[in-house]
Amino acid sequence: MGKTINEIKLGDSAYTEKTISESDIYLFAGITGDLNPAHINQMESAKTMFKGRIAHGILVSGLISAVLGMQLPGSGTIYLYQTLKFVAPARMGDTIKAEVVVKEIIPEKNRVVLTTTCTNQDEKVVISGEAVVMPPKVR
Amino acid sequence: MGKTINEIKLGDSAYTEKTISESDIYLFAGITGDLNPAHINQMESAKTMFKGRIAHGILVSGLISAVLGMQLPGSGTIYLYQTLKFVAPARMGDTIKAEVVVKEIIPEKNRVVLTTTCTNQDEKVVISGEAVVMPPKVR
Amino acid sequence: MGKTINEIKLGDSAYTEKTISESDIYLFAGITGDLNPAHINQMESAKTMFKGRIAHGILVSGLISAVLGMQLPGSGTIYLYQTLKFVAPARMGDTIKAEVVVKEIIPEKNRVVLTTTCTNQDEKVVISGEAVVMPPKVR
Amino acid sequence: MGKTINEIKLGDSAYTEKTISESDIYLFAGITGDLNPAHINQMESAKTMFKGRIAHGILVSGLISAVLGMQLPGSGTIYLYQTLKFVAPARMGDTIKAEVVVKEIIPEKNRVVLTTTCTNQDEKVVISGEAVVMPPKVR
Repeated sequence: MGKTINEIKLGDSAYTEKTISESDIYLFAGITGDLNPAHINQMESAKTMFKGRIAHGILVSGLISAVLGMQLPGSGTIYLYQTLKFVAPARMGDTIKAEVVVKEIIPEKNRVVLTTTCTNQDEKVVISGEAVVMPPKVR
Repeated sequence: MGKTINEIKLGDSAYTEKTISESDIYLFAGITGDLNPAHINQMESAKTMFKGRIAHGILVSGLISAVLGMQLPGSGTIYLYQTLKFVAPARMGDTIKAEVVVKEIIPEKNRVVLTTTCTNQDEKVVISGEAVVMPPKVR
Repeated sequence: MGKTINEIKLGDSAYTEKTISESDIYLFAGITGDLNPAHINQMESAKTMFKGRIAHGILVSGLISAVLGMQLPGSGTIYLYQTLKFVAPARMGDTIKAEVVVKEIIPEKNRVVLTTTCTNQDEKVVISGEAVVMPPKVR
Repeated sequence: MGKTINEIKLGDSAYTEKTISESDIYLFAGITGDLNPAHINQMESAKTMFKGRIAHGILVSGLISAVLGMQLPGSGTIYLYQTLKFVAPARMGDTIKAEVVVKEIIPEKNRVVLTTTCTNQDEKVVISGEAVVMPPKVR
């Protein structure tokens, strides 16, 4: 089980990293039905401002979910709320770091607010936002 | 190409539906690394308040992305912002409807605000929230 | 629902496009069990006249099915018959356009015949053939 | 390598079998973009004459391709032509047998014509048709 609210302190952080592959994007397109040419058509996407296929923003957001559910607070966490500002695209081959930092702890409601940030290998922010979660009540 | 801002009216709506499968959840777990037992461990998840494996909230959110990028506004849309309130879990076998409704149009910034709602086959809300997008500038 | 036979005219057409990825080919190989070295063995396939791995012809044909079932006639269509002439291979990275054109309408049998053509980014024909479908009876 | 034309006799046959899973259908939907509700929406497909989700006809056809490319003639075969008559749907859980039988041998063109039949566990024909292939020239 993950950490209970008593084991979490302001400023605690955790992250995961993944190099986003073509197959990640293609599978995500299939799962969600988001077959937008921006993601799966090299010829069309090359004509856009992004100059080629990009990852779905929501796919990249999944890395945030992974950190929350796997590390901080970890297993047993209930995911209540997320804001996502899509600042820049993630491309195939980009190595994305999703980091969460504890910003606020509300013990009486068993809630924790975290800033959630995805950056690429050049430390450019790809997604910024906040999450609200309920940590597990017992370890 | 999708609709330009001049072709979009307040109240316009679009939706997509999918029955969420075990394979959707397992592939999403693999893509994101979110291997939380709540999603992939039947024995552990059966002990939780959800009484079994549930879909990742972010996976279900991908259906919203699909509607925005495929239908309204459609191809060429740039996704700027999304809020996601995870109201109830989606389970394997649930047929989820993701619907977007135009709430606000800001022509001077080429931005459209949409309410985004995912419901299950019992019309129970699973995810509520809002998206901000830039429609394509030319058709 | 898709178009009924009364809403379809001779010459009506629709298409979809996708850049074929390695992951598409590998997943299709796994689904069908067609693990022919031509598709999944770079060393062996490099020795053939195709000089590398190629997509399964039936995989590419799936794009035709997508256009028929999603666009013309669309949802509710019953797929009766297909001929497939495999004219040239599709390779990883090729952007394939699958186009269907209404060739014949047989109202008394509720059947529509369409030419079905897949071309690559160089407008080279990859697959040619014909489909026979029953459009949905009601919209 | 597979069999050369001199090693193939009229009436030679081969087959493969697979139980079609939900994940096969969902992955195929993702690869091709054929997200027709008939395949991925239990609620909608339950209202149709098929009373639930069915496999894509082209997915099932992939089993024919597997037999041709893996067994008869086998590796090195060039797939020239296929006709597909979709006689009945294959459902999740159906065990499909794809069988090919040599019908005609044309040595001067190095071509072999085979009847290709997919049946389900009740010996009901799901797909019938013919294939034309070029066997490998050397073993």
